[in-house]
Amino acid sequence: MPATDGPDPDEDWVIDRLASRSAPAPGLVLGIGDDAALFEDGRVYTVDSMVEGVHWDDKLSPADVGWKLVAVNVSDVGAMGGRPSFALLTMGLPSPLDRAWVDAFADGLHAACAKWGVALVGGDTTRSPVRTLSLTVGGHAARPVRRSTGRVGDDVWVTGQLGLAAEGFLSATPRPAALARLRRPEPPVAFGVALAEAGLASAMMDLSDGLARDLGRLCDASGCGALLDAEMIPGDAPLDWRVAFGEDYELLFSASVQDRDAVRSVASMQDIPISRVGRLEPRPGLRLVDGGEMPASLFTHFAARVPRTPPRRGRTRSTPGRNGEAT
Amino acid sequence: MPATDGPDPDEDWVIDRLASRSAPAPGLVLGIGDDAALFEDGRVYTVDSMVEGVHWDDKLSPADVGWKLVAVNVSDVGAMGGRPSFALLTMGLPSPLDRAWVDAFADGLHAACAKWGVALVGGDTTRSPVRTLSLTVGGHAARPVRRSTGRVGDDVWVTGQLGLAAEGFLSATPRPAALARLRRPEPPVAFGVALAEAGLASAMMDLSDGLARDLGRLCDASGCGALLDAEMIPGDAPLDWRVAFGEDYELLFSASVQDRDAVRSVASMQDIPISRVGRLEPRPGLRLVDGGEMPASLFTHFAARVPRTPPRRGRTRSTPGRNGEAT
Repeated sequence: MPATDGPDPDEDWVIDRLASRSAPAPGLVLGIGDDAALFEDGRVYTVDSMVEGVHWDDKLSPADVGWKLVAVNVSDVGAMGGRPSFALLTMGLPSPLDRAWVDAFADGLHAACAKWGVALVGGDTTRSPVRTLSLTVGGHAARPVRRSTGRVGDDVWVTGQLGLAAEGFLSATPRPAALARLRRPEPPVAFGVALAEAGLASAMMDLSDGLARDLGRLCDASGCGALLDAEMIPGDAPLDWRVAFGEDYELLFSASVQDRDAVRSVASMQDIPISRVGRLEPRPGLRLVDGGEMPASLFTHFAARVPRTPPRRGRTRSTPGRNGEAT
Repeated sequence: MPATDGPDPDEDWVIDRLASRSAPAPGLVLGIGDDAALFEDGRVYTVDSMVEGVHWDDKLSPADVGWKLVAVNVSDVGAMGGRPSFALLTMGLPSPLDRAWVDAFADGLHAACAKWGVALVGGDTTRSPVRTLSLTVGGHAARPVRRSTGRVGDDVWVTGQLGLAAEGFLSATPRPAALARLRRPEPPVAFGVALAEAGLASAMMDLSDGLARDLGRLCDASGCGALLDAEMIPGDAPLDWRVAFGEDYELLFSASVQDRDAVRSVASMQDIPISRVGRLEPRPGLRLVDGGEMPASLFTHFAARVPRTPPRRGRTRSTPGRNGEAT
């Protein structure tokens, strides 16, 4: 059974405590508080950790865990328009060692590394009473895109179908595609890179915590709000599964209305399904077409009972929940 | 009480399992199996993790843990002749959060980051039943030095005094300097960089697992052996504490006999004590002047009862113990 790991005011406190006194790095463009660290020369770095019983349970095989550890990290890099290229792994493993577990984990990790062109270049293995994994991924963005540069009037787009991982986790009878998405997310990294390099995305981030929270973050960072059309949010799951559960590892981006055809063309070339779900507006907050304010419950609905892999972006300091939603 | 974490054949197996199928990274010069990953353009990356109860006990305050996490990583970078510049941190912390612990930890971490010019640029915070930390450090080596390029006939040098951390851990009445070394190691990073950039070190690595094991690794990697003069090994602790305990985080390097004065000059300018403790020889293995073979016990003496912070280099695949010593 997974432990809960919903919004945690302590986490913001920890991040603030660590970030507040950190010295500036030469050439650093984005540091603590964004999806990934970004340097002037385009180097991008991100790290995520996964703890057994907190971030995964027996719905995931050891190979799934290996895959997902890579996927959640390359998702961050791709969402900045970066190509991931290398990784460093730490593994804390209980003694005596379960070699079959490591073997299967390595299979999944290597399969994901091969898919996204990531080379494992270093790491550290140690004993730990509970399986604890972390992966640092480095890459390069020729034309990086941030979450903070959305412009009022831009369209809001998402890739893929949302809510599949929610179905995989919450449904008593999930479809195979839903279980597969929970176990082996497939972030559209190459599409993120293509959008960025074509200069089409005005702002971009990945969908890890659900559209409601993540779009709230993009809007907060960009100093705007958004109007969403619930009918356009892709997927056949209930609205709350589509917008509030998370674990989608799809892309969320904004783009100029003039670039609609160009965006569709890039998506079509890469065979990536995309949906235009709304637009950025001057008024802060998220609203639904015909639905008034985005229900606050959508931000917190699953907070107390879903696993997070990783639980939440450990770097985002501004969340919808801190801007008028229930705490 | 610290758990034990001595030589573990499983660890080599894990590393081999992970390394065996990793794709090559473009421009990668050194990958899994060395102190740090090194790219052609001089980028250097290393990662180490620390788990409470495995890598530290109550001899270390939370601030000491923060300091040490930075120190053990910059030690790896400096030992390759690299200047560390940035870091990404993961913290797994039990719930409810102990803010005082995090506060003190952050103080130590920031103090060490300030000392070695490291900027914290990202991270991930999550819940975990046991405190688990990992730090990835990146840097740059203008003229990188490996452990594998020692030449027969070269002098073998070490910095500092060895055995202080051993005294800090093992002695019932340790001196303040010994406790300080155990708690707050001070790897001579700038000296490693200066030696490397002056082209004076033919091979170099840091002393984390004790001179006996680490020199054995340098020799194995360089395809040679070494003759050690026990009288010259610096420190006033018993020989086994000086060569077999580890946790020194000093530098071990080889240099041409012709460069003795130049080496001393660089050390003097940086106010770093150095000692010439032996020389590299064609015959494999470590020998003591007048003492015959290096006693096998020195490689395994503390194996079953000392903490390692980190336990052992999780990347070294060739150890003295696998080349003729007791297993």
